[in-house]
Amino acid sequence: MGVNEIDRLIQVLSKLPGLGPRSARRVALYLIKNTETILKPLALVMETVADKIQTCSICGNVDSINPCSICTNAKRDGSIICVVEDVADLWALERSAIYNGTYHVLGGVLSPLDGIGPDDLTLDGLFSRVELKDVVEVILATGATVDGKTTAHYIAERMVNFSVNVTALAHGIPVGGELDYLDDGTLSAALKARSGV
Amino acid sequence: MGVNEIDRLIQVLSKLPGLGPRSARRVALYLIKNTETILKPLALVMETVADKIQTCSICGNVDSINPCSICTNAKRDGSIICVVEDVADLWALERSAIYNGTYHVLGGVLSPLDGIGPDDLTLDGLFSRVELKDVVEVILATGATVDGKTTAHYIAERMVNFSVNVTALAHGIPVGGELDYLDDGTLSAALKARSGV
Repeated sequence: MGVNEIDRLIQVLSKLPGLGPRSARRVALYLIKNTETILKPLALVMETVADKIQTCSICGNVDSINPCSICTNAKRDGSIICVVEDVADLWALERSAIYNGTYHVLGGVLSPLDGIGPDDLTLDGLFSRVELKDVVEVILATGATVDGKTTAHYIAERMVNFSVNVTALAHGIPVGGELDYLDDGTLSAALKARSGV
Repeated sequence: MGVNEIDRLIQVLSKLPGLGPRSARRVALYLIKNTETILKPLALVMETVADKIQTCSICGNVDSINPCSICTNAKRDGSIICVVEDVADLWALERSAIYNGTYHVLGGVLSPLDGIGPDDLTLDGLFSRVELKDVVEVILATGATVDGKTTAHYIAERMVNFSVNVTALAHGIPVGGELDYLDDGTLSAALKARSGV
Protein backbone atom coordinates (compact mmCIF):
# COMPACT_ATOMS: atom_id res chain seq x y z
CA MET A 1 0.00 0.00 0.00
CA GLY A 2 3.01 2.25 0.40
CA VAL A 3 1.29 4.17 3.19
CA ASN A 4 3.41 3.69 6.26
CA GLU A 5 1.17 5.28 8.89
CA ILE A 6 -1.93 3.40 7.72
CA ASP A 7 -0.02 0.12 7.48
CA ARG A 8 1.29 0.62 10.98
CA LEU A 9 -2.22 1.44 12.27
CA ILE A 10 -3.61 -1.73 10.68
CA GLN A 11 -0.71 -3.74 12.07
CA VAL A 12 -1.29 -2.59 15.66
CA LEU A 13 -5.09 -2.91 15.37
CA SER A 14 -4.78 -6.50 14.16
CA LYS A 15 -3.11 -7.41 17.46
CA LEU A 16 -6.29 -6.60 19.39
CA PRO A 17 -8.39 -9.56 20.53
CA GLY A 18 -11.14 -10.44 18.07
CA LEU A 19 -9.59 -8.46 15.20
CA GLY A 20 -7.81 -10.16 12.32
CA PRO A 21 -6.05 -8.47 9.38
CA ARG A 22 -9.31 -8.01 7.47
CA SER A 23 -11.32 -6.49 10.32
CA ALA A 24 -8.29 -4.38 11.30
CA ARG A 25 -8.30 -2.87 7.80
CA ARG A 26 -12.02 -2.21 8.12
CA VAL A 27 -11.56 -0.50 11.48
CA ALA A 28 -8.56 1.50 10.19
CA LEU A 29 -10.55 2.79 7.21
CA TYR A 30 -13.47 3.64 9.47
CA LEU A 31 -11.12 5.57 11.76
CA ILE A 32 -9.58 7.47 8.83
CA LYS A 33 -13.01 8.36 7.49
CA ASN A 34 -14.17 9.57 10.91
CA THR A 35 -11.06 11.43 12.02
CA GLU A 36 -12.84 14.10 14.03
CA THR A 37 -15.67 12.08 15.51
CA ILE A 38 -13.91 8.80 16.37
CA LEU A 39 -10.17 8.73 15.67
CA LYS A 40 -9.14 11.82 17.64
CA PRO A 41 -11.43 11.19 20.64
CA LEU A 42 -10.27 7.58 20.76
CA ALA A 43 -6.58 8.55 20.65
CA LEU A 44 -7.23 11.07 23.41
CA VAL A 45 -9.09 8.70 25.73
CA MET A 46 -6.40 6.06 25.13
CA GLU A 47 -3.70 8.48 26.24
CA THR A 48 -5.71 9.38 29.33
CA VAL A 49 -6.18 5.71 30.16
CA ALA A 50 -2.48 5.00 29.59
CA ASP A 51 -1.56 7.87 31.91
CA LYS A 52 -4.09 7.39 34.66
CA ILE A 53 -5.17 3.79 34.97
CA GLN A 54 -3.29 1.69 37.48
CA THR A 55 -3.76 -1.60 39.27
CA CYS A 56 -5.25 -1.39 42.78
CA SER A 57 -2.61 -2.49 45.28
CA ILE A 58 -5.28 -4.05 47.50
CA CYS A 59 -7.63 -5.97 45.22
CA GLY A 60 -6.00 -5.94 41.75
CA ASN A 61 -8.83 -4.01 40.08
CA VAL A 62 -7.89 -1.38 37.46
CA ASP A 63 -8.89 2.20 38.20
CA SER A 64 -7.70 5.80 37.97
CA ILE A 65 -7.09 5.83 41.72
CA ASN A 66 -5.11 3.45 43.93
CA PRO A 67 -6.59 1.93 46.07
CA CYS A 68 -9.48 1.60 43.66
CA SER A 69 -12.93 3.18 43.99
CA ILE A 70 -14.41 -0.10 45.25
CA CYS A 71 -11.80 -0.61 47.98
CA THR A 72 -12.08 3.02 49.12
CA ASN A 73 -15.89 3.13 48.98
CA ALA A 74 -17.09 3.30 52.59
CA LYS A 75 -20.54 2.08 51.55
CA ARG A 76 -19.18 -1.28 50.46
CA ASP A 77 -18.87 -4.16 52.87
CA GLY A 78 -15.15 -4.77 53.41
CA SER A 79 -15.87 -7.89 55.46
CA ILE A 80 -16.81 -9.84 52.32
CA ILE A 81 -14.24 -10.57 49.61
CA CYS A 82 -15.30 -12.02 46.29
CA VAL A 83 -12.37 -13.81 44.62
CA VAL A 84 -12.41 -13.57 40.81
CA GLU A 85 -9.97 -14.67 38.14
CA ASP A 86 -9.85 -11.49 36.14
CA VAL A 87 -10.93 -7.84 36.03
CA ALA A 88 -13.47 -8.83 33.35
CA ASP A 89 -15.20 -11.06 35.92
CA LEU A 90 -15.22 -8.19 38.41
CA TRP A 91 -16.85 -5.96 35.77
CA ALA A 92 -19.45 -8.66 35.08
CA LEU A 93 -20.38 -8.85 38.77
CA GLU A 94 -20.45 -5.04 39.03
CA ARG A 95 -22.82 -4.85 36.05
CA SER A 96 -25.21 -7.19 37.83
CA ALA A 97 -25.22 -4.58 40.67
CA ILE A 98 -26.23 -7.24 43.17
CA TYR A 99 -22.97 -7.49 45.12
CA ASN A 100 -21.92 -4.87 47.64
CA GLY A 101 -18.72 -6.35 49.07
CA THR A 102 -15.12 -6.02 47.91
CA TYR A 103 -13.14 -8.07 45.40
CA HIS A 104 -9.84 -9.81 44.98
CA VAL A 105 -8.57 -10.28 41.45
CA LEU A 106 -6.30 -13.33 41.20
CA GLY A 107 -4.90 -12.45 37.79
CA GLY A 108 -5.51 -15.96 36.47
CA VAL A 109 -6.02 -19.52 37.69
CA LEU A 110 -3.67 -22.24 38.84
CA SER A 111 -2.65 -24.21 35.79
CA PRO A 112 0.23 -26.64 36.23
CA LEU A 113 0.25 -27.43 32.50
CA ASP A 114 0.87 -23.76 31.67
CA GLY A 115 3.35 -23.46 34.52
CA ILE A 116 1.12 -21.14 36.57
CA GLY A 117 1.54 -21.88 40.27
CA PRO A 118 0.34 -20.15 43.48
CA ASP A 119 3.19 -17.62 43.31
CA ASP A 120 2.01 -16.35 39.92
CA LEU A 121 -1.36 -15.30 41.33
CA THR A 122 -2.14 -12.64 43.95
CA LEU A 123 -2.84 -15.31 46.57
CA ASP A 124 -0.46 -13.89 49.19
CA GLY A 125 -2.30 -10.59 49.02
CA LEU A 126 -5.59 -12.39 49.53
CA PHE A 127 -4.36 -14.36 52.54
CA SER A 128 -2.86 -11.30 54.22
CA ARG A 129 -6.13 -9.40 53.65
CA VAL A 130 -8.04 -12.23 55.32
CA GLU A 131 -5.47 -12.45 58.11
CA LEU A 132 -5.12 -8.78 58.90
CA LYS A 133 -8.66 -7.46 58.41
CA ASP A 134 -12.01 -8.45 59.79
CA VAL A 135 -13.06 -10.59 56.85
CA VAL A 136 -16.17 -12.65 57.57
CA GLU A 137 -16.75 -14.32 54.20
CA VAL A 138 -14.69 -15.21 51.15
CA ILE A 139 -16.81 -15.96 48.06
CA LEU A 140 -14.92 -18.07 45.51
CA ALA A 141 -16.14 -16.88 42.09
CA THR A 142 -13.57 -18.52 39.83
CA GLY A 143 -14.84 -20.08 36.62
CA ALA A 144 -16.52 -23.49 36.51
CA THR A 145 -13.57 -24.91 34.54
CA VAL A 146 -11.11 -27.56 35.73
CA ASP A 147 -8.47 -24.91 36.48
CA GLY A 148 -11.01 -22.59 38.08
CA LYS A 149 -12.26 -25.39 40.32
CA THR A 150 -8.72 -26.40 41.22
CA THR A 151 -7.90 -22.82 42.18
CA ALA A 152 -11.06 -22.51 44.29
CA HIS A 153 -10.24 -25.79 46.01
CA TYR A 154 -6.67 -24.68 46.73
CA ILE A 155 -7.85 -21.37 48.23
CA ALA A 156 -10.53 -23.11 50.31
CA GLU A 157 -7.92 -25.49 51.74
CA ARG A 158 -5.56 -22.67 52.65
CA MET A 159 -8.46 -20.75 54.24
CA VAL A 160 -9.04 -23.53 56.79
CA ASN A 161 -6.41 -21.85 59.00
CA PHE A 162 -8.44 -18.65 59.19
CA SER A 163 -11.78 -18.22 60.93
CA VAL A 164 -13.55 -17.17 57.77
CA ASN A 165 -16.62 -18.48 56.01
CA VAL A 166 -15.67 -19.75 52.54
CA THR A 167 -18.49 -19.99 49.97
CA ALA A 168 -18.74 -20.55 46.22
CA LEU A 169 -21.19 -19.45 43.53
CA ALA A 170 -24.10 -21.83 43.00
CA HIS A 171 -24.26 -24.11 39.98
CA GLY A 172 -27.49 -24.65 38.12
CA ILE A 173 -29.56 -23.80 35.09
CA PRO A 174 -28.74 -20.34 33.66
CA VAL A 175 -31.74 -17.99 33.74
CA GLY A 176 -33.38 -18.20 30.32
CA GLY A 177 -31.66 -21.52 29.57
CA GLU A 178 -33.49 -24.45 28.01
CA LEU A 179 -32.87 -27.87 29.50
CA ASP A 180 -32.47 -29.42 26.07
CA TYR A 181 -29.36 -27.38 25.33
CA LEU A 182 -27.61 -27.82 28.68
CA ASP A 183 -24.69 -30.17 29.25
CA ASP A 184 -24.93 -33.17 31.56
CA GLY A 185 -22.69 -31.61 34.21
CA THR A 186 -24.91 -28.55 34.61
CA LEU A 187 -28.09 -30.63 34.67
CA SER A 188 -26.63 -32.99 37.25
CA ALA A 189 -25.48 -30.04 39.42
CA ALA A 190 -28.90 -28.39 39.13
CA LEU A 191 -30.64 -31.63 40.12
CA LYS A 192 -28.35 -32.23 43.09
CA ALA A 193 -28.86 -28.67 44.37
CA ARG A 194 -32.65 -28.71 43.88
CA SER A 195 -34.71 -26.84 46.45
CA GLY A 196 -38.33 -26.68 47.59
CA VAL A 197 -40.56 -24.17 45.83
CA MET B 1 -18.40 0.64 37.03
CA GLY B 2 -17.60 4.08 38.38
CA VAL B 3 -14.42 4.26 36.28
CA ASN B 4 -14.92 7.18 33.95
CA GLU B 5 -11.88 6.83 31.69
CA ILE B 6 -12.41 3.10 31.17
CA ASP B 7 -16.13 3.56 30.57
CA ARG B 8 -15.38 6.24 28.01
CA LEU B 9 -12.78 4.02 26.30
CA ILE B 10 -15.29 1.16 26.07
CA GLN B 11 -17.95 3.55 24.80
CA VAL B 12 -15.77 4.85 21.95
CA LEU B 13 -14.41 1.38 21.10
CA SER B 14 -17.94 -0.01 20.82
CA LYS B 15 -18.62 2.44 17.97
CA LEU B 16 -16.00 0.75 15.78
CA PRO B 17 -17.31 -1.56 13.06
CA GLY B 18 -17.47 -5.18 14.16
CA LEU B 19 -17.20 -4.36 17.87
CA GLY B 20 -20.18 -4.54 20.19
CA PRO B 21 -20.29 -3.64 23.89
CA ARG B 22 -18.93 -7.05 24.91
CA SER B 23 -16.00 -7.15 22.51
CA ALA B 24 -15.30 -3.47 23.27
CA ARG B 25 -14.91 -4.38 26.94
CA ARG B 26 -12.60 -7.22 25.97
CA VAL B 27 -10.46 -4.92 23.81
CA ALA B 28 -10.42 -2.22 26.53
CA LEU B 29 -9.21 -4.69 29.16
CA TYR B 30 -6.59 -6.01 26.76
CA LEU B 31 -5.39 -2.45 26.12
CA ILE B 32 -5.22 -1.68 29.86
CA LYS B 33 -3.25 -4.86 30.52
CA ASN B 34 -0.83 -4.10 27.68
CA THR B 35 -0.34 -0.38 28.25
CA GLU B 36 3.28 -0.23 27.11
CA THR B 37 3.18 -2.73 24.27
CA ILE B 38 -0.18 -1.95 22.64
CA LEU B 39 -2.10 0.96 24.19
CA LYS B 40 0.60 3.63 23.96
CA PRO B 41 1.87 2.66 20.48
CA LEU B 42 -1.73 2.52 19.23
CA ALA B 43 -2.57 5.96 20.66
CA LEU B 44 0.61 7.33 19.07
CA VAL B 45 -0.02 5.87 15.61
CA MET B 46 -3.63 7.08 15.78
CA GLU B 47 -2.47 10.63 16.47
CA THR B 48 -0.01 10.45 13.59
CA VAL B 49 -2.73 9.18 11.28
CA ALA B 50 -5.14 11.89 12.47
CA ASP B 51 -2.48 14.53 11.80
CA LYS B 52 -1.06 13.33 8.53
CA ILE B 53 -3.59 11.33 6.56
CA GLN B 54 -5.60 13.28 4.00
CA THR B 55 -7.76 12.53 1.00
CA CYS B 56 -6.02 12.73 -2.39
CA SER B 57 -7.50 15.64 -4.35
CA ILE B 58 -7.08 13.75 -7.61
CA CYS B 59 -8.28 10.18 -6.98
CA GLY B 60 -9.85 10.20 -3.49
CA ASN B 61 -7.36 7.74 -1.99
CA VAL B 62 -6.18 8.35 1.60
CA ASP B 63 -2.48 8.95 2.12
CA SER B 64 0.02 11.03 4.05
CA ILE B 65 0.73 13.08 0.93
CA ASN B 66 -1.63 14.91 -1.44
CA PRO B 67 -1.73 14.01 -4.34
CA CYS B 68 -1.33 10.45 -3.09
CA SER B 69 1.64 8.14 -3.66
CA ILE B 70 -0.20 6.32 -6.45
CA CYS B 71 -1.11 9.48 -8.38
CA THR B 72 2.43 10.89 -8.01
CA ASN B 73 4.18 7.60 -8.85
CA ALA B 74 5.78 8.08 -12.28
CA LYS B 75 6.02 4.31 -12.76
CA ARG B 76 2.23 3.93 -12.76
CA ASP B 77 0.24 4.24 -15.95
CA GLY B 78 -1.81 7.44 -15.69
CA SER B 79 -3.64 6.63 -18.91
CA ILE B 80 -5.71 3.94 -17.17
CA ILE B 81 -8.17 4.81 -14.41
CA CYS B 82 -9.78 2.08 -12.33
CA VAL B 83 -13.04 3.34 -10.81
CA VAL B 84 -13.78 1.85 -7.38
CA GLU B 85 -16.50 2.52 -4.82
CA ASP B 86 -14.32 2.85 -1.78
CA VAL B 87 -10.73 3.06 -0.51
CA ALA B 88 -11.11 -0.51 0.78
CA ASP B 89 -11.62 -1.69 -2.82
CA LEU B 90 -8.51 0.26 -3.88
CA TRP B 91 -6.56 -1.49 -1.10
CA ALA B 92 -7.87 -4.89 -2.24
CA LEU B 93 -6.69 -4.25 -5.81
CA GLU B 94 -3.33 -2.96 -4.55
CA ARG B 95 -2.86 -6.13 -2.48
CA SER B 96 -3.35 -8.23 -5.60
CA ALA B 97 -0.40 -6.22 -7.05
CA ILE B 98 -1.59 -6.95 -10.57
CA TYR B 99 -2.76 -3.47 -11.54
CA ASN B 100 -0.34 -0.70 -12.45
CA GLY B 101 -2.67 2.13 -13.44
CA THR B 102 -4.29 4.84 -11.33
CA TYR B 103 -7.57 4.86 -9.43
CA HIS B 104 -10.65 6.95 -8.89
CA VAL B 105 -12.52 6.47 -5.61
CA LEU B 106 -16.21 7.32 -6.02
CA GLY B 107 -16.95 7.42 -2.31
CA GLY B 108 -20.03 5.24 -2.70
CA VAL B 109 -22.55 4.14 -5.30
CA LEU B 110 -25.66 5.70 -6.78
CA SER B 111 -28.56 4.71 -4.59
CA PRO B 112 -31.84 6.57 -5.20
CA LEU B 113 -33.47 4.81 -2.22
CA ASP B 114 -30.80 6.20 0.12
CA GLY B 115 -30.92 9.57 -1.61
CA ILE B 116 -27.42 9.25 -3.08
CA GLY B 117 -27.30 10.86 -6.53
CA PRO B 118 -24.47 11.68 -8.97
CA ASP B 119 -23.61 14.88 -7.08
CA ASP B 120 -22.85 12.92 -3.90
CA LEU B 121 -20.07 10.96 -5.62
CA THR B 122 -16.77 12.22 -7.05
CA LEU B 123 -18.09 11.80 -10.60
CA ASP B 124 -17.26 15.36 -11.73
CA GLY B 125 -13.66 14.79 -10.74
CA LEU B 126 -13.60 11.58 -12.78
CA PHE B 127 -15.09 13.21 -15.89
CA SER B 128 -12.69 16.16 -15.74
CA ARG B 129 -9.76 13.76 -15.34
CA VAL B 130 -10.90 11.87 -18.44
CA GLU B 131 -11.54 15.12 -20.32
CA LEU B 132 -8.32 16.92 -19.45
CA LYS B 133 -5.76 14.13 -19.44
CA ASP B 134 -4.76 11.48 -21.95
CA VAL B 135 -6.88 8.73 -20.47
CA VAL B 136 -7.08 5.68 -22.73
CA GLU B 137 -9.10 3.30 -20.59
CA VAL B 138 -11.56 3.53 -17.71
CA ILE B 139 -12.04 0.23 -15.84
CA LEU B 140 -15.34 0.13 -13.95
CA ALA B 141 -14.64 -1.90 -10.80
CA THR B 142 -17.77 -1.15 -8.78
CA GLY B 143 -19.36 -4.04 -6.90
CA ALA B 144 -21.56 -6.64 -8.60
CA THR B 145 -24.59 -5.38 -6.67
CA VAL B 146 -27.66 -3.66 -8.12
CA ASP B 147 -26.38 -0.23 -7.01
CA GLY B 148 -22.85 -0.98 -8.17
CA LYS B 149 -24.12 -2.08 -11.59
CA THR B 150 -26.34 0.99 -11.86
CA THR B 151 -23.40 3.25 -11.05
CA ALA B 152 -21.18 1.51 -13.62
CA HIS B 153 -23.95 1.82 -16.24
CA TYR B 154 -24.38 5.53 -15.47
CA ILE B 155 -20.65 6.20 -15.77
CA ALA B 156 -20.41 4.17 -19.01
CA GLU B 157 -23.26 6.21 -20.54
CA ARG B 158 -21.65 9.51 -19.60
CA MET B 159 -18.32 8.30 -21.01
CA VAL B 160 -19.79 7.93 -24.50
CA ASN B 161 -18.96 11.62 -25.10
CA PHE B 162 -15.25 11.00 -24.52
CA SER B 163 -12.97 8.98 -26.77
CA VAL B 164 -12.08 6.54 -24.04
CA ASN B 165 -12.29 2.77 -23.81
CA VAL B 166 -14.67 1.78 -20.99
CA THR B 167 -14.28 -1.74 -19.59
CA ALA B 168 -15.58 -3.64 -16.58
CA LEU B 169 -14.23 -6.46 -14.42
CA ALA B 170 -15.10 -9.95 -15.69
CA HIS B 171 -17.76 -12.05 -13.99
CA GLY B 172 -17.26 -15.76 -13.45
CA ILE B 173 -16.36 -18.47 -11.02
CA PRO B 174 -14.12 -17.24 -8.17
CA VAL B 175 -10.75 -19.01 -8.10
CA GLY B 176 -11.07 -21.90 -5.65
CA GLY B 177 -14.88 -21.78 -5.86
CA GLU B 178 -16.96 -24.94 -6.17
CA LEU B 179 -19.79 -24.92 -8.70
CA ASP B 180 -22.18 -26.49 -6.23
CA TYR B 181 -22.00 -23.48 -3.91
CA LEU B 182 -22.30 -20.74 -6.54
CA ASP B 183 -25.47 -18.79 -7.18
CA ASP B 184 -27.34 -19.01 -10.49
CA GLY B 185 -26.34 -15.50 -11.56
CA THR B 186 -22.63 -16.24 -11.28
CA LEU B 187 -22.96 -19.60 -13.03
CA SER B 188 -24.96 -18.05 -15.86
CA ALA B 189 -22.41 -15.22 -16.25
CA ALA B 190 -19.53 -17.74 -16.26
CA LEU B 191 -21.28 -19.86 -18.90
CA LYS B 192 -22.05 -16.88 -21.14
CA ALA B 193 -18.45 -15.64 -20.94
CA ARG B 194 -16.90 -19.07 -21.57
CA SER B 195 -13.73 -19.19 -23.61
CA GLY B 196 -11.67 -21.74 -25.53
CA VAL B 197 -8.97 -23.61 -23.57
